[in-house]
Amino acid sequence: MIPTPYLLFLGDAPDQLAAKVAQGIKDWRPENAVGQFRLPGCGADVGIDDLTLQEAWDAGARTVVIGVANRGGIISQSWKDVLIEALGMGFDLASGLHNLLRDENDLVAAARVAGQTLHDVRIPSVAYPIANGLKRTGKRCLAVGTDCSAGKMYTGLAMDGEMRKRGMKSTFRPTGQTGILITGGGVPLDAVVADFMAGAVEYLTPDNDEDHWDHIEGQGSLFHASYSGVTMALVHGGQPDALVLAHEPTRTHMRGLPTYSLPTLEALRDLSLQVARVVNPDVKVIGISVNTQHLSEDEANACLKEIEDRMGLPTVDPFRHGADRLVDALVAL
Amino acid sequence: MIPTPYLLFLGDAPDQLAAKVAQGIKDWRPENAVGQFRLPGCGADVGIDDLTLQEAWDAGARTVVIGVANRGGIISQSWKDVLIEALGMGFDLASGLHNLLRDENDLVAAARVAGQTLHDVRIPSVAYPIANGLKRTGKRCLAVGTDCSAGKMYTGLAMDGEMRKRGMKSTFRPTGQTGILITGGGVPLDAVVADFMAGAVEYLTPDNDEDHWDHIEGQGSLFHASYSGVTMALVHGGQPDALVLAHEPTRTHMRGLPTYSLPTLEALRDLSLQVARVVNPDVKVIGISVNTQHLSEDEANACLKEIEDRMGLPTVDPFRHGADRLVDALVAL
Repeated sequence: MIPTPYLLFLGDAPDQLAAKVAQGIKDWRPENAVGQFRLPGCGADVGIDDLTLQEAWDAGARTVVIGVANRGGIISQSWKDVLIEALGMGFDLASGLHNLLRDENDLVAAARVAGQTLHDVRIPSVAYPIANGLKRTGKRCLAVGTDCSAGKMYTGLAMDGEMRKRGMKSTFRPTGQTGILITGGGVPLDAVVADFMAGAVEYLTPDNDEDHWDHIEGQGSLFHASYSGVTMALVHGGQPDALVLAHEPTRTHMRGLPTYSLPTLEALRDLSLQVARVVNPDVKVIGISVNTQHLSEDEANACLKEIEDRMGLPTVDPFRHGADRLVDALVAL
Repeated sequence: MIPTPYLLFLGDAPDQLAAKVAQGIKDWRPENAVGQFRLPGCGADVGIDDLTLQEAWDAGARTVVIGVANRGGIISQSWKDVLIEALGMGFDLASGLHNLLRDENDLVAAARVAGQTLHDVRIPSVAYPIANGLKRTGKRCLAVGTDCSAGKMYTGLAMDGEMRKRGMKSTFRPTGQTGILITGGGVPLDAVVADFMAGAVEYLTPDNDEDHWDHIEGQGSLFHASYSGVTMALVHGGQPDALVLAHEPTRTHMRGLPTYSLPTLEALRDLSLQVARVVNPDVKVIGISVNTQHLSEDEANACLKEIEDRMGLPTVDPFRHGADRLVDALVAL
């Protein structure tokens, strides 16, 4: 686990989009974000206090999280000056960048001297077991998509947020680097060695109270030729009791695969249930989450209604309208 | 690729079973095996000439393959004496052992001095791409199983052998360490990082002549909770034109999963086709391969007939009766 709370390092992010990891932390775990740190020329602002390292430390922050994509894959000297100073003060560093903190000799040396840890969340830090397929106590919900990047992480976070608001027992279980940085822990599933994928998901979602729900972050799609194996391991390792279908209605082809069209929601429902029943015969599809960001309010409402009428399942955009109805459907299980 | 042909190192194998990798090489690629090397007390014999290192070198061998499981996971000093001498003579070493050659400092040093290579075939040696899902030229056949260890590698090797015998264009494409050692190359799929699994299979089965068949070694099972993600990546990365269903009829539960029963061959057929159609709408199931090693001749024949009548597909045990009928079915496609 990454020590919380965080100071969010935005560096010299060119624009708001480059700071989406920091924005995700601030949106979903504001209690984890005591402030932001920006360098001259930074074009991003996640809307929290600008703090110096010392102010952040005094406010309780214990990790500096790199909440930004870096330019050209290089950790620049201007970043390093701040990061090395932070290590010396007793902060850990955490990053989801492709180029790893641990590959930077000066950061490694500074961390060693200070006795601090560099958390590269793209890299597994645990030797995961082979999955044993045994039934676990507690309940699990997984979002499966017609495609990658269809809103699965957002759906899980929104359902978890709604359940916590209602005082229910709920945990979001990240399987990608953004989710791991938001919550402070998880499994970077796309970087796990093939034989241990399902075991890593079992490890992530252990026995729990019978009325506790894990919201497992979905990845890829059973219909995505590049990543379907990762999704399969999520379904079989996760043993979901409930599935949510995630969809982005304006996509014209599978992400990164211009020659592949998207499956229908009906095909997604049928294949997901068929596969999930191998590990849990009682699994149900409880609702549909549609990412309507590219639609107007009217278009979005029409789209949601059409899908709800057709599929006979609660259909919402949790970003636009909240996850209440999805949580209601979980409760009704 | 591992330089061929090989000298098969049996060491002090306690019995024949411990030498099954060497036996596989001798059975499937006898032209790759110029001889065997046994230490005092060796209880295995794959039925080829015992050669000294010098005799093997003179006969053309260029790699010493560790064709045996070692005891207690340790590469003993008696093995090392031979292996270091071999490196000094100009042999490469190849191994599928869990404990790696590259982790033995004395072997690494000897290889460096001699300018030879240590091939640990359990570890990927290539940075595989992300799968692009593009249609490739040539034909591909994949065996999918009701369970792990149901005879999928044997089926692929037998079909490849039969096609070569008929003068057809055919290549066996290994995805596990035994297969890689048999042929000298392949992808150790269970050790590939999740995101690159399907891309590794695409890499393994590139464009080819239109009348060429790749026989892709199957792994795991779509119904195996521990390894289904690996199988999924094989199906989507492999883009099979033909599927063979592999089954071991005496299995009482999924291998390693005592709480899971096996799927029916009907369920395997239906799910495999559904999943494979994502990447190739024209995929067909062309036959069934049954591993009848635990049945008498009468029992085996009855079992094969029952399955063939029920499923309406050519059903054989390729070990007992050859792969002719499976290849006939491929040709008829």
